[in-house]
Amino acid sequence: MKTILILGAGKSSSYLIDYIAATCSDGSRKLILADLDLALANSKIQGKPNTEATGFSIEDKEALKKLITASDVVISMLPAFMHPIVAKECLILKKHFFSASYESEEIKSMQAEIEKKGLFFLNECGLDPGLDHMSAMKIILEAKANQEEILSFKSYCGGLLAPISEDNPWKYKFTWNPRNVVLAGQGISKYIDQGELKFVPYHQVFKRTETIHFDRLGDFDGYPNRDSLNYRKVYGIESIQTMLRGTLRRSGYCKAWDVFVQLGLTDDSYELNLQEGSTLRQFLNTFLPYKKELSVEEKLAEAIPEMDFPTFEKIQWLGFFGNRKLPKTQGSPASILQAILEEDWKLFPEDKDMILMQHQFEIKSSKGTKTIISSLVCYGEDSTYTAMAKTVGLPLAIAVDEFLNGKIKLTGLYVPVLPELYTPILNKLETLGIRFIESIN
Amino acid sequence: MKTILILGAGKSSSYLIDYIAATCSDGSRKLILADLDLALANSKIQGKPNTEATGFSIEDKEALKKLITASDVVISMLPAFMHPIVAKECLILKKHFFSASYESEEIKSMQAEIEKKGLFFLNECGLDPGLDHMSAMKIILEAKANQEEILSFKSYCGGLLAPISEDNPWKYKFTWNPRNVVLAGQGISKYIDQGELKFVPYHQVFKRTETIHFDRLGDFDGYPNRDSLNYRKVYGIESIQTMLRGTLRRSGYCKAWDVFVQLGLTDDSYELNLQEGSTLRQFLNTFLPYKKELSVEEKLAEAIPEMDFPTFEKIQWLGFFGNRKLPKTQGSPASILQAILEEDWKLFPEDKDMILMQHQFEIKSSKGTKTIISSLVCYGEDSTYTAMAKTVGLPLAIAVDEFLNGKIKLTGLYVPVLPELYTPILNKLETLGIRFIESIN
Repeated sequence: MKTILILGAGKSSSYLIDYIAATCSDGSRKLILADLDLALANSKIQGKPNTEATGFSIEDKEALKKLITASDVVISMLPAFMHPIVAKECLILKKHFFSASYESEEIKSMQAEIEKKGLFFLNECGLDPGLDHMSAMKIILEAKANQEEILSFKSYCGGLLAPISEDNPWKYKFTWNPRNVVLAGQGISKYIDQGELKFVPYHQVFKRTETIHFDRLGDFDGYPNRDSLNYRKVYGIESIQTMLRGTLRRSGYCKAWDVFVQLGLTDDSYELNLQEGSTLRQFLNTFLPYKKELSVEEKLAEAIPEMDFPTFEKIQWLGFFGNRKLPKTQGSPASILQAILEEDWKLFPEDKDMILMQHQFEIKSSKGTKTIISSLVCYGEDSTYTAMAKTVGLPLAIAVDEFLNGKIKLTGLYVPVLPELYTPILNKLETLGIRFIESIN
Repeated sequence: MKTILILGAGKSSSYLIDYIAATCSDGSRKLILADLDLALANSKIQGKPNTEATGFSIEDKEALKKLITASDVVISMLPAFMHPIVAKECLILKKHFFSASYESEEIKSMQAEIEKKGLFFLNECGLDPGLDHMSAMKIILEAKANQEEILSFKSYCGGLLAPISEDNPWKYKFTWNPRNVVLAGQGISKYIDQGELKFVPYHQVFKRTETIHFDRLGDFDGYPNRDSLNYRKVYGIESIQTMLRGTLRRSGYCKAWDVFVQLGLTDDSYELNLQEGSTLRQFLNTFLPYKKELSVEEKLAEAIPEMDFPTFEKIQWLGFFGNRKLPKTQGSPASILQAILEEDWKLFPEDKDMILMQHQFEIKSSKGTKTIISSLVCYGEDSTYTAMAKTVGLPLAIAVDEFLNGKIKLTGLYVPVLPELYTPILNKLETLGIRFIESIN
């Protein structure tokens, strides 16, 4: 009997837990679910046979060792910085390791030993990274097999609201780590367009958008996401002339968000110490010049010449022109903005989220140049069974299942860019309703 | 006989060396001038009696100890990060210490021991910081003595070109550390205006300008310079409602410089690795989106909607629309921009620089509210005897002279905000032609 250990029972583990638990129901496997919050872990496995929940803290090395010793494969759903700690123990105790997070330098440094010990370590097997790699590589390797040349590859992904839950002017709520949403785009974004390297500083990134269309859903903004250049190597398309990875938001979001970026409300580099009882209006005014004769609204319009009504409305809806009290007055501007948004952008229990992904390829074949648009739309059930949890957790769950079934026979350190990995996972996902729709022109 | 040690014989030491050397000519004092470049040090004291030059490296602790042991007072004109090393040795060897740089945390931590040993350590006794403190405190303390209330204090300073040498469209050349000019304004700028705290992110700072006028010279841009809030405490005006320190550039400079800021050419946070032989035009294009049908000039105009002809002309004059080769292709965008500007903004030997400083006070007295404008204009002689070297070096030289003459009788750690310090220095500077002109309305 194989024992599967899942570390972390948070929101994004819902589907993962259910899927793995289902594979345990016949008694051939056992699931141990460990979380800092034992009650939470218990609630997730309630009534599921051959499963057990346990409390666990990453601080307690002995408990971690014990848990891993009792297992055959370990799935880490912990915060990213904890993965190397878990992976290291797996390496020492000779257990297989799975995560949906980026393959860190620390984990890369373990590669030789993973291979030597005949273990299988799989990272980046969630949504983004994860599904993006798999669905893109399928098209890239098919093109290569047909001796076609990939001229251009743009790939966009976003965690958004299902249209039915788009009930505020931003058409956005937090379905993911709010801090990451507030700091999104910071640092430099890099991509290549028609052979020209492009570098976009943070305060330009929400202006450098493209309109991305999804059938029946309409238009979205796509803005460049960090370093797209690295992926040329990961995908084996080093000489490609256009390569861009972007993040999706509903049309108009980026223009309004850019107001916060321009004024400095997303700055996380210094601490404000505002007066207790300060209002959102006063917070906003802190980033505008003093002009005796002008209101906050007028000064904002002067500072942001491209301000239009839809943008104004979004900022107004958050309460920035009113006298609502700030939820906190100490901390970086970004942390205060986050606290405001956590009140306004909170999912209702019945809200449904939506995951969008779209790959746009231009491929040169012997018959001319064709465009392939490959799109994924996935809806959540409610605020617990989210599309985010589904698309992050199911690829990982399937990978573990297929590995234990013996369908994945690799040893070593991987991300899912090989057909041996992505083919069974994508096929299984299709049966679960997670499928890409392709159009070729 | 007292021995004065000057560490650093670079550009900004010219006037300091001459002034101190002159006080040595009657044999009552001796000057030792130490620099990494012995030939440079020798050239600076040639033919001056009772002076000697020596080679010296901050790496060589034994040589530093020996030099300080042989001296009574030490003047450090070294790069800022070296001051604490020198100050520490002065403390151990019981010597007085002078610098024109900011009082660092490391030096502050020495305060108790400086006092205990009866030493005198004076920092921030150059131009900015230095002359700004002295001239401002003179007005502030006079107002306080008259029971007047300071409502508003804005202070601007700039190292610029004398109008006779303003022979390029920027009306600017490097008269100071080029790297500091390229990175100027980075981080967050803070000030208070009519009781409202204001925080300006880097990408807004060159838009948040005020027009500052100097008689007979015309208009300049003043942009907020770092943390103006700290100075409320330094100047003893904690409850002031408006306090802003700014940097001066010729009118129009800030709008054109902001183009580089907006596009990301002043970014120092990552490394570019451009193709050998790349041109300025290609460098600029790296920060603009790809648009097949548009030229670099057209894309620039689209990216910077407020572009006007004077701005365009400045960027054109630097060669950004032409095929001049980049002076370097590796390094951060800021370092590549700096290398370009070092070719174009180099002082000719006969160029004259200019230092401007202006304090704007609003003061409430029993007779109503008055405005005091106190302005300093100082011209350089040529590219060696610069106004920068004059206004940095002379306050420091006079401070040392007055200290050795026994006119300054303090012990402890100071910046020149006390009348005992600034009165003799400002009086002496007046006789040397460095004087503030006050207008009261």
